[in-house]
Amino acid sequence: MDTWMRFMSNDGGVVFGRVEGGYLHEYESLEQPVPTGAVLSTRALTPLAPCAPGKVVALWNNFHALAAKLDKPVPSHPLFLLKPASSVIGAGEPIRRPAGYAGKIVYEGELGIVIGRRCRNASIEEAAQAIFGYTLVNDVTAADLLNENPHFPQWCRAKGFDTFCCIGPAIVSGFAWQKAHLTTTLDGVERQNYPLADMVFSPAEQVSLISQDLTLEPGDMIACGTSVGVGSIKDGATVTVAIEGIGRLSNTLSAAGAVTAGAAAAAEASAV
Amino acid sequence: MDTWMRFMSNDGGVVFGRVEGGYLHEYESLEQPVPTGAVLSTRALTPLAPCAPGKVVALWNNFHALAAKLDKPVPSHPLFLLKPASSVIGAGEPIRRPAGYAGKIVYEGELGIVIGRRCRNASIEEAAQAIFGYTLVNDVTAADLLNENPHFPQWCRAKGFDTFCCIGPAIVSGFAWQKAHLTTTLDGVERQNYPLADMVFSPAEQVSLISQDLTLEPGDMIACGTSVGVGSIKDGATVTVAIEGIGRLSNTLSAAGAVTAGAAAAAEASAV
Repeated sequence: MDTWMRFMSNDGGVVFGRVEGGYLHEYESLEQPVPTGAVLSTRALTPLAPCAPGKVVALWNNFHALAAKLDKPVPSHPLFLLKPASSVIGAGEPIRRPAGYAGKIVYEGELGIVIGRRCRNASIEEAAQAIFGYTLVNDVTAADLLNENPHFPQWCRAKGFDTFCCIGPAIVSGFAWQKAHLTTTLDGVERQNYPLADMVFSPAEQVSLISQDLTLEPGDMIACGTSVGVGSIKDGATVTVAIEGIGRLSNTLSAAGAVTAGAAAAAEASAV
Repeated sequence: MDTWMRFMSNDGGVVFGRVEGGYLHEYESLEQPVPTGAVLSTRALTPLAPCAPGKVVALWNNFHALAAKLDKPVPSHPLFLLKPASSVIGAGEPIRRPAGYAGKIVYEGELGIVIGRRCRNASIEEAAQAIFGYTLVNDVTAADLLNENPHFPQWCRAKGFDTFCCIGPAIVSGFAWQKAHLTTTLDGVERQNYPLADMVFSPAEQVSLISQDLTLEPGDMIACGTSVGVGSIKDGATVTVAIEGIGRLSNTLSAAGAVTAGAAAAAEASAV
């Protein structure tokens, strides 16, 4: 298992690499994981989302326990929507309530698959090889928008707002998801605790089947879907998604317009 | 009005610029439209999709005539889904039937808005300024997948396959869409002919409203939605979308596995 992170350095540049004992061993990129030879103390660096996905494929109804609770049949092919790159933030960055939206905002703790190499029509074996590693996802939804229009379910809009795809803090390669549990806490109170082994489509199956539809690129992400225990976040509350061996992803929901100047500046810098 | 195109040069590089009288006046990029001073004959260049959008926001139910035909109320906010960057192809490139899908494939001729500058919470005036120009879109759908699963409408999957977002051949800046008509022909037979003035949300309104939800980046596209006359494409048939002043966008549907070696090589090269 290796732990990979992305940081902003003091000069505003972005560095990526393997983190060990408080040091970043810099690599060219996720796509070309070749060491540059540079070793930097992580104390001098500002953490960013661990990758910059071109697209995020987000699965719906991919856990047996949730399917049973919703009384829906398990799907025969991954059911997914897309979250845009513009929705991605890293650990510690604020989730921003959309201006003009006073409704319910919902967390979903999920395992994230990070793609390491271009992937099209991949077999299960090729798909397994194309997985760079795993991260944590909080797949945020403006729940009241989803069915606001009775003629068109607004999955992409409700889940696509800026800051609505929290990922991080790290990508862990070689991670054995099969025996892991994911927990989500809301202001420290456990709300989700489910075994990843309950997935309908395994990570390699997801990558293989989705790659029959659309080409996956290095850095792209698949959010594996959530299980039972989803709930709403009040303004000011903090959601923490955790998997032992990957880490803890915490993000706080800010009321509209309530983002601090520092956080806004960091978000601006990381988006450049 | 200026006409902007993107090409592959003989050395495999990508060039972007203003086209006039058979020559490309090269510019740094769509984001930084500064002339490089280079002038190239377009005869030595291979056309590509005119931009490389990070995301494509595709509107549903944005024409009064179509809303009336579908007997749906006109929406109060743009209703959209996202098509991934991996679905984009240029004029002349083949639409590929997904392997394992024998169902109906549908064309939709649309106006495309190309974003020129980063756009977040834009007013109508700022939104109008952020539009780089307009292009043509064939928003392709694997229609039988849309409601294949009764519990989850698969908009992103049905419209997100590789090659399902045809755009081009050019971006025209300063284009007056208000008086223009869009036509779509199928193997030369006219199937759509509708006035763009029938749009529910104008281009500047679309950009402004969508930028309240998600940050639009230079090169991103909005497909403005289609009107009446949508229909299915048989394998081997050619769809041509045209607007006088922008040009003609033609793409042929290839049966699965039937893409010629040359087209596949061109697609591979343009994807690098």
